Amino acid sequence: MPSSWGKIFRVSTFGESHGDSVGVVIDGVPGGLKFDLAEIQKDLTRRRPGQNLLTTPRKEDDEVRVVSGIFEGKTIGSPITLIVGNKNHLSKDYENLRHIYRPSHADYTYHAKYGHRSHVGGARASVRETIGRVAAGAFARCILEDELGIQTIAWVDSIGDVFANITDNLPKSHADVDVNDVRCPHPEFAEKMIEKIKEVRKIGDSIGGTIRAVVRNVPPGLGDPVYDKLDGDLGRAILSIPACKGFEIGSGFEGTKYTGSTHNDEFYVEPETGRVRTKTNRSGGMQGGISNGEEILIRAAFKPTATIAKFQNTVNDTPEDIIMKAGGRHDPCVLPRAVPIVEAAINLVLVDAYFYQRALQPEWLAVWKKK
Amino acid sequence: MPSSWGKIFRVSTFGESHGDSVGVVIDGVPGGLKFDLAEIQKDLTRRRPGQNLLTTPRKEDDEVRVVSGIFEGKTIGSPITLIVGNKNHLSKDYENLRHIYRPSHADYTYHAKYGHRSHVGGARASVRETIGRVAAGAFARCILEDELGIQTIAWVDSIGDVFANITDNLPKSHADVDVNDVRCPHPEFAEKMIEKIKEVRKIGDSIGGTIRAVVRNVPPGLGDPVYDKLDGDLGRAILSIPACKGFEIGSGFEGTKYTGSTHNDEFYVEPETGRVRTKTNRSGGMQGGISNGEEILIRAAFKPTATIAKFQNTVNDTPEDIIMKAGGRHDPCVLPRAVPIVEAAINLVLVDAYFYQRALQPEWLAVWKKK
Amino acid sequence: MPSSWGKIFRVSTFGESHGDSVGVVIDGVPGGLKFDLAEIQKDLTRRRPGQNLLTTPRKEDDEVRVVSGIFEGKTIGSPITLIVGNKNHLSKDYENLRHIYRPSHADYTYHAKYGHRSHVGGARASVRETIGRVAAGAFARCILEDELGIQTIAWVDSIGDVFANITDNLPKSHADVDVNDVRCPHPEFAEKMIEKIKEVRKIGDSIGGTIRAVVRNVPPGLGDPVYDKLDGDLGRAILSIPACKGFEIGSGFEGTKYTGSTHNDEFYVEPETGRVRTKTNRSGGMQGGISNGEEILIRAAFKPTATIAKFQNTVNDTPEDIIMKAGGRHDPCVLPRAVPIVEAAINLVLVDAYFYQRALQPEWLAVWKKK
Amino acid sequence: MPSSWGKIFRVSTFGESHGDSVGVVIDGVPGGLKFDLAEIQKDLTRRRPGQNLLTTPRKEDDEVRVVSGIFEGKTIGSPITLIVGNKNHLSKDYENLRHIYRPSHADYTYHAKYGHRSHVGGARASVRETIGRVAAGAFARCILEDELGIQTIAWVDSIGDVFANITDNLPKSHADVDVNDVRCPHPEFAEKMIEKIKEVRKIGDSIGGTIRAVVRNVPPGLGDPVYDKLDGDLGRAILSIPACKGFEIGSGFEGTKYTGSTHNDEFYVEPETGRVRTKTNRSGGMQGGISNGEEILIRAAFKPTATIAKFQNTVNDTPEDIIMKAGGRHDPCVLPRAVPIVEAAINLVLVDAYFYQRALQPEWLAVWKKK
Repeated sequence: MPSSWGKIFRVSTFGESHGDSVGVVIDGVPGGLKFDLAEIQKDLTRRRPGQNLLTTPRKEDDEVRVVSGIFEGKTIGSPITLIVGNKNHLSKDYENLRHIYRPSHADYTYHAKYGHRSHVGGARASVRETIGRVAAGAFARCILEDELGIQTIAWVDSIGDVFANITDNLPKSHADVDVNDVRCPHPEFAEKMIEKIKEVRKIGDSIGGTIRAVVRNVPPGLGDPVYDKLDGDLGRAILSIPACKGFEIGSGFEGTKYTGSTHNDEFYVEPETGRVRTKTNRSGGMQGGISNGEEILIRAAFKPTATIAKFQNTVNDTPEDIIMKAGGRHDPCVLPRAVPIVEAAINLVLVDAYFYQRALQPEWLAVWKKK
Repeated sequence: MPSSWGKIFRVSTFGESHGDSVGVVIDGVPGGLKFDLAEIQKDLTRRRPGQNLLTTPRKEDDEVRVVSGIFEGKTIGSPITLIVGNKNHLSKDYENLRHIYRPSHADYTYHAKYGHRSHVGGARASVRETIGRVAAGAFARCILEDELGIQTIAWVDSIGDVFANITDNLPKSHADVDVNDVRCPHPEFAEKMIEKIKEVRKIGDSIGGTIRAVVRNVPPGLGDPVYDKLDGDLGRAILSIPACKGFEIGSGFEGTKYTGSTHNDEFYVEPETGRVRTKTNRSGGMQGGISNGEEILIRAAFKPTATIAKFQNTVNDTPEDIIMKAGGRHDPCVLPRAVPIVEAAINLVLVDAYFYQRALQPEWLAVWKKK
Repeated sequence: MPSSWGKIFRVSTFGESHGDSVGVVIDGVPGGLKFDLAEIQKDLTRRRPGQNLLTTPRKEDDEVRVVSGIFEGKTIGSPITLIVGNKNHLSKDYENLRHIYRPSHADYTYHAKYGHRSHVGGARASVRETIGRVAAGAFARCILEDELGIQTIAWVDSIGDVFANITDNLPKSHADVDVNDVRCPHPEFAEKMIEKIKEVRKIGDSIGGTIRAVVRNVPPGLGDPVYDKLDGDLGRAILSIPACKGFEIGSGFEGTKYTGSTHNDEFYVEPETGRVRTKTNRSGGMQGGISNGEEILIRAAFKPTATIAKFQNTVNDTPEDIIMKAGGRHDPCVLPRAVPIVEAAINLVLVDAYFYQRALQPEWLAVWKKK
Repeated sequence: MPSSWGKIFRVSTFGESHGDSVGVVIDGVPGGLKFDLAEIQKDLTRRRPGQNLLTTPRKEDDEVRVVSGIFEGKTIGSPITLIVGNKNHLSKDYENLRHIYRPSHADYTYHAKYGHRSHVGGARASVRETIGRVAAGAFARCILEDELGIQTIAWVDSIGDVFANITDNLPKSHADVDVNDVRCPHPEFAEKMIEKIKEVRKIGDSIGGTIRAVVRNVPPGLGDPVYDKLDGDLGRAILSIPACKGFEIGSGFEGTKYTGSTHNDEFYVEPETGRVRTKTNRSGGMQGGISNGEEILIRAAFKPTATIAKFQNTVNDTPEDIIMKAGGRHDPCVLPRAVPIVEAAINLVLVDAYFYQRALQPEWLAVWKKK
């Protein structure tokens, strides 16, 4: 179950939802970087369950602990290991699921693949695995902010059929997004979304939605233009988040309706800076898989949570047809908590592309490093 | 410019559009497999330019040559190298582009990244790079067909605003798709699409579109459920095809509007076989990043070709604002030729997931190998 | 500081000698395998300090804890995380070394490389890092024993100028080796070695030595014959153990004096089994980087421990010339404790080669799997 | 048959000895570097067969051709593909070997591993595979020389029992080494070595030997100190050269006889430069797997060529015991031709360590880049 990514800044997560702990090893880390645990904890806190009524009532404080790699507040080049203990063990709650394959969960596919599985709380398929990604992503965020001034902001753009569709006046900060529980910066739509979530929660159901993200101040030149294209790598990172079913960069599916003459982003020289810019940004910040210096624009689709408090037809591992109803405490909608996970995915891809570009073209750094 | 992919079945492409040759090295190949060059050539021929009036008039026969890895018609475990010469060198045609960054092309980003670039015919950013993918993908297809009975079929689902939106009665063979020049199996919509392409070609413009694909007979258990999820890997493989801007698996963006109770795929035991099946397939053939035995359903967005025969504002590498008009012979629409490229991307991901699964769970093979 | 190895069975160690913990993540693990923690602990106990008077008096029980990847005694395909806490924190002991580069230690090179370093107990350069290797290697050993019947045995072959040079009647079990404190199966030479170590310990000095290893029952066909040759991979694994300065396979340096006619290993058909065997084994169990079914024969050189209780000239990080004398409690000779580390290195290489071979040639398994 | 190495500067060789061609793809190449084909050819010419009477009389000019990655004399970041055609096809010469496993060759192990093999001229196990390594290594050499001033020189140190054992007055240039056919810079010993080779050649036999290498001007800080130790990586690179059976760094096996107080390399501050230096160099230029700025000192053992013109007992693939005598034209001693291969191996490891260090610690470059 390969659980690592990155060519240089290499992230490996471990842990199951109801095991001892979950965590992450970050390798390929420069020495001498400031390591601020409060920044890591900040992102984990945005991700954690039990934040408000829109998310699962499971309370986990998700306090992170440094196991290796930091000495007197700074990195020493060693692998950084971060661990979050699992406090909310209620394995017995899951005993009735031991032989059941829940619809649209990974119970059946894990069993078909590995022969032996843990039936407890999703185990490795739980969204709890993303704790490691978010922790590593927070450290990536700090590096990108400090060295290049890069800023990554995601928000909930739709819940069910309530589409805010925010493509102008994009949020300027995480505070703009965290202004309400659903993490949609548009107050009116946010209210409708919250209504929608409360509605499905009341009937024991769940609902999907979309997330948009913008990344600012990415210098031109990140990403490798064949198989490690920046769009491909971002797509993979986001599609590997549980429940994600779709990904767009720039104009996405809508852009397929355009002609070349209406879709192309014309270049111009920005008078103030002499930099090459584009007038429009249908490309979403990259061409040929390499960042072009414009805002990176991303959109991702998340299906409704599979766990619902309703009777469903399914099978057990005999296999026999059965009827089940899930107990437990689950998110009626994963979107608000997915916002920091999407940001982490983006930052992990970018920091690795940045380190790789430093390896190949060190003179590039002199031009683009934050002054 | 990392140009390799796959954990075990490792594919590395090389070559620029107007250099000596383009090609591919395939490593991680079992010994003793039949290698049928005609099968490779068949897929390259589906991809090659100059097939009909919908594609570029550049004629390249794209004849493939085996340089290594095959002995007396079979693999010997060695890296297989396949090369296609570039016959249509017209480097002088491109001299006027030496200092120009074409809009929505990768000219500027390559220069910003590498400092030195070839201005000739897109060089490495040319879709000609995909020859290597298609050649390797054809070999992957043969392995998947022979050993697991897997069948991968893609088709053009829309051109501009002409949407066939084929979600039932999916094509049963490549012949069903190749029945017309636009590679849309629905005759009425195909005709409208062809009209649309002719229309934009006449005015020197280009048009985008979408491709759908179905993969049949994938056994449950392929894909690794954290960062190497089957959906994430498929997404990356397809998003790394030039011009691709969006990817969906199963219900995709549409699925975000559903509730859990209307979206979940209920399991049942198939009476004839005793196999675990799902009644619906909104998951698109996988759960938790692992194939579940149902059809894999994919949709991909391709933007309009950036090269058009119209005046456009852009910049040169001084940089200064200029006006340009491209000459050359280009595809008004890449979609028909992208069909075999999408199939290759899928088959390359699947064969690697298959080999990885064999490494970990050899007993799995006994259950799922084609009888 | 890449700390991972293996193409499929992927091992990543983490932790510094005086941080919170050291440990290992093992990924690429099949599901459904028995996981016996006692077997892991057994190898860690052979490696741990404070075993007897020949090793450092530091006492660490090195008790291992499972953090992830095991459910009800068996693997589930998830990354297995094993952690050993650092109980013997005496950071203050090292305060006087904060600015000193100890001779033949990695203090200076770490600083030159990473800019910021931990001066405490060797940090990541400590042999304590090998705990993770030994833990993972123990699991690899179990897989190799269970599935192929492979047996790996290493022993101390020389200490200083006392050479046992055991090339016949190789030890048959770990018990044959653990029969004395120096882990040399030849009683007379063992006694002399022990004398030698006591002698250097008395004067605050240290001593080097060599280790030999034999691996039995390796089926033909493991190892990849270009850059991932079995000899190259074994060499790298063993040379990456702290203090190792040399590696030989089969006839090694001695073999360079031979002619082809006296060095070649002639093949014959073993009458009882019909198997292809060699009459001699100067190749050391492999040809062209692939195992040939004969015993794998390895020899490795370990320099004397750099830490000694004597005055030495060196420099501080100003830098200025200084004189230092190390305190602390150190091994006068690492060889006895290196025995299980060498075995772990070998088993990790073999299990990965085994899994890779299963991926490529599943039919091979049917022939060679332990009946 | 994984045939790639390097984390960033990624080298992949392909081709069999009597197939169409052999070659190499180099990926992870910066853009804008000068690419001098004459430098590549120079190293290939040092490696090629038929140079003089000490090597095989097979004449191959080994002329290299650029297939991709170079534009107007400079790199463009694309994969560089270099190909050398196989002109000396005499496949029929090998027909009698179709079913024979030659002693100490890889015929049997390839067959046991892959099921299907080419019996022609060693195929992938031929030393002809190293053409790709030498070509890529030559490019690595140019980068290391240009950017860091690194110089790598190897020479033949012994043939059979004739040991020059050159540890002082190491050669200063390739010219110092190429002064005679056996590539030993010590004229007297060179003469004896040449006699030895002529002697074994006369009786159809072969002979082994050792190679030493020195690398100068390596800045402190290259190599990663856990599993990617510089010594481990160098060891693997050299042990993966055909016929290599042993590797030493610094004091090697001899160093095991020392005590810590006689083996440790004391540091001092070099008055002229203020740099940290060591008085002795038993460490061989690295500590903890990281270069320390001193000369890197390497020694490697090569067994006698397996192919000899004498009757030998062996088996065929039935298998049955048989007697064979090899025809063909072979090297009585590979050592002289192995000199540039060893240098290539070293340079490939160093350039990759250099690029990786640039990725992590860009400020390091400012200190150590050749002025």
